[in-house]
Amino acid sequence: MTSPHSLPRTFTRDLHQHDGERVRLQGFLHARRDLGGVQFAVLRDVTGIAQCVGSAITLPLPESSIEITGTVKAHKKAPGGFEVQIDEGGFKVLSASTEAPPVEIPKMEWNVNPETMLDYRYVSLRGLRERAALRVQSELVYAFHTYLRAQGFTEISTPKIVSAGAEGGANLFKLDYFGEQAYLAQSPQLYKQIMVGVFERVYEVAPVYRAEEHATSRHLNEYLSLDVELGFIDSEEDVMNVEQELLRAVMEHLKVNCAAEFELLGATIPDVPAQIPRIPLLEARQLVTDKYQHQVGGKDLDPEAERLLSQHYAETTGSEFVFVTKYPRAARPFYTHADHNADGTLSDTLTRGFDLLFRGIEITSGGQRIHEYQMLLASITAYNMNPEALAGYSEVFKFGMPPHGGFAIGAERLTAKLLGIANVRYARAFPRDRHRLTP
Amino acid sequence: MTSPHSLPRTFTRDLHQHDGERVRLQGFLHARRDLGGVQFAVLRDVTGIAQCVGSAITLPLPESSIEITGTVKAHKKAPGGFEVQIDEGGFKVLSASTEAPPVEIPKMEWNVNPETMLDYRYVSLRGLRERAALRVQSELVYAFHTYLRAQGFTEISTPKIVSAGAEGGANLFKLDYFGEQAYLAQSPQLYKQIMVGVFERVYEVAPVYRAEEHATSRHLNEYLSLDVELGFIDSEEDVMNVEQELLRAVMEHLKVNCAAEFELLGATIPDVPAQIPRIPLLEARQLVTDKYQHQVGGKDLDPEAERLLSQHYAETTGSEFVFVTKYPRAARPFYTHADHNADGTLSDTLTRGFDLLFRGIEITSGGQRIHEYQMLLASITAYNMNPEALAGYSEVFKFGMPPHGGFAIGAERLTAKLLGIANVRYARAFPRDRHRLTP
Repeated sequence: MTSPHSLPRTFTRDLHQHDGERVRLQGFLHARRDLGGVQFAVLRDVTGIAQCVGSAITLPLPESSIEITGTVKAHKKAPGGFEVQIDEGGFKVLSASTEAPPVEIPKMEWNVNPETMLDYRYVSLRGLRERAALRVQSELVYAFHTYLRAQGFTEISTPKIVSAGAEGGANLFKLDYFGEQAYLAQSPQLYKQIMVGVFERVYEVAPVYRAEEHATSRHLNEYLSLDVELGFIDSEEDVMNVEQELLRAVMEHLKVNCAAEFELLGATIPDVPAQIPRIPLLEARQLVTDKYQHQVGGKDLDPEAERLLSQHYAETTGSEFVFVTKYPRAARPFYTHADHNADGTLSDTLTRGFDLLFRGIEITSGGQRIHEYQMLLASITAYNMNPEALAGYSEVFKFGMPPHGGFAIGAERLTAKLLGIANVRYARAFPRDRHRLTP
Repeated sequence: MTSPHSLPRTFTRDLHQHDGERVRLQGFLHARRDLGGVQFAVLRDVTGIAQCVGSAITLPLPESSIEITGTVKAHKKAPGGFEVQIDEGGFKVLSASTEAPPVEIPKMEWNVNPETMLDYRYVSLRGLRERAALRVQSELVYAFHTYLRAQGFTEISTPKIVSAGAEGGANLFKLDYFGEQAYLAQSPQLYKQIMVGVFERVYEVAPVYRAEEHATSRHLNEYLSLDVELGFIDSEEDVMNVEQELLRAVMEHLKVNCAAEFELLGATIPDVPAQIPRIPLLEARQLVTDKYQHQVGGKDLDPEAERLLSQHYAETTGSEFVFVTKYPRAARPFYTHADHNADGTLSDTLTRGFDLLFRGIEITSGGQRIHEYQMLLASITAYNMNPEALAGYSEVFKFGMPPHGGFAIGAERLTAKLLGIANVRYARAFPRDRHRLTP
């Protein structure tokens, strides 16, 4: 980019490379202090913050966009070990705040109502911790792209306006589509299966929608789903292998690119073991009951059981991840492939569905899918779903769909667990929940 | 991935590397011919097709998933110059089609009703031309990610369920959000502007929604928008510079990664000139009138004027791209920054909005945005929009937003123009239009 400026822009991160030199910084007035004869300005740019000092400066309100020209000097007490001594006339306001921000951006802990924080999200996201979380998510998603492409996956873009839900009729947002009833997609599930017939290995990064009425710390009504599906597999073990190596690549990417953000947030990047432990659900329930005397409700794992099972594996193997496999049919959607019995026949009760737990919470559901048309039709009927509403999808299974499977990761939930963010809403820029449609 | 198979899988693209060797292929039965004593099978995998020949094989229906083990032999008439001589017992059906596909996948030109083709999209996408178009789009989008990240942009994920439209109330899909009226986002416009305050340079790859009633060959009701926004600019020229270099990087990526797809589709990858021509709209209208005697309607360029202006620049400069700049206020949304008059005052009539034309059609709208709160409020009022409905966005402009601008590219429209696809619906896997909600 050509610039009409005499000095190129320097980023605060690079100040140490310019000791004794004149630089030009741009950013926001993060913090300010006026001692009368001397003014301190902390400038925040996308790479960090820099302490700047000068005189005869009329400091604007915090968060104003500013440009500072001055000389870099080593200064032990300044962030990063350097400060900028502002030239005479070297403090320029690019765009002044018209009022003080509703939250004190430089504060690292904000003692306000969490809902108020979300109301002010359009400006509180400028906080160092807030933006660090979203930057980690951005890098995480990019590593997802990069690794999968290197493994021969093709990215797809599938409709979010659909005529029927992938998981049945529950929890769907309804939409008027030119007079027809439509829904927002809960998942690209059946579309990504179709696309296995086209590209064999596919992935998608896109929002999905769940009209869940209840508010929890782990659910969002709109979230970014990282979806993967692959064909020509032998079993769901192949799918778990892909996810395991994907997670390894993502964590390596974060170690290289996000060390500062993890340090700022006091979080650690997990090691992915050579083989993530895999335990069948029924054994997992038994283990939790035997070891922790926790009676597991339902047919799945309840949140406490997820926590205890993770604790067990962290303590006994060091792994912060564990795959829970062979879910019972009653706990999985209609398209899940049955498990095979020892004699090679199909199980009536168990499936090739799995979950992945990380630090005590499920971050993935996945499994092998049904790829045979008659088996799929039988399952749709058994689940009391409408075969006609699903015809546009199920038709594809007439045409030689290979054995396939896949999984999905909620980007915000994984980000939250990685960074120790207690509520998943803070791992999304502008979360949508039961009561929140703005900003 | 561990494999229980004795031979690793070979892709059809790599057959020439295995002359005389035994290989194991997996894929779909693309075409078949049974001459009694000898059977021909064309296997299609994600990388291409391979001719295979054997005997005593009962060929399944087309599109069945198959696995073939055999020996590679040079064969001049086979695709790629090699065929596979199938082992005795080396033809295995992984998953049989239960009926013949509704379209003949191997045909390169399908003489059926275009709507019928879209009805069968879940299987017609397996066609070599169909999937080539989507693969080009996937590479195009990946190049968009890669280039922008290298330039310091951060990817964001913004809500698609919103309380108000970015461009006003028209063409919005309405949604019931837990009893509240909500809309599907037409654009991440105001969210990406907010995020400039957080990360300075941002981009998003996500679907957007336009409830346009009219059917044209260039519009979709749901499309993939490639959105870019950057702060600390001097003018919209900086924005156009970013887009120009982005397009150069994308085209270079396609040259390296998609040469086969362009060849298959008979399309050429454009060169991006060192400087894409830039012409103010009013001059462009005059030029088209003077040179082609075309009276341009409205305040913008009509489709014929876009075509003629592109033709002019292609003929006189060789550029297939042209920026049309300084759009009048009446033709741009409320957040567009006014142009500066020669004396430095703001123009009442012209803006810093621009379009980019490529091969006769607009593929981008962009511009510098208003960054001052009072100017934005005045503009919202002048456009007869509701300041309260936009408060969640406009509030951010109280807090020192730097001068900024951006643009958006419709992925499908750019793909279609690159590949010579006449109707943009065929540049999307599962298009949504006025009458189409399935598959």
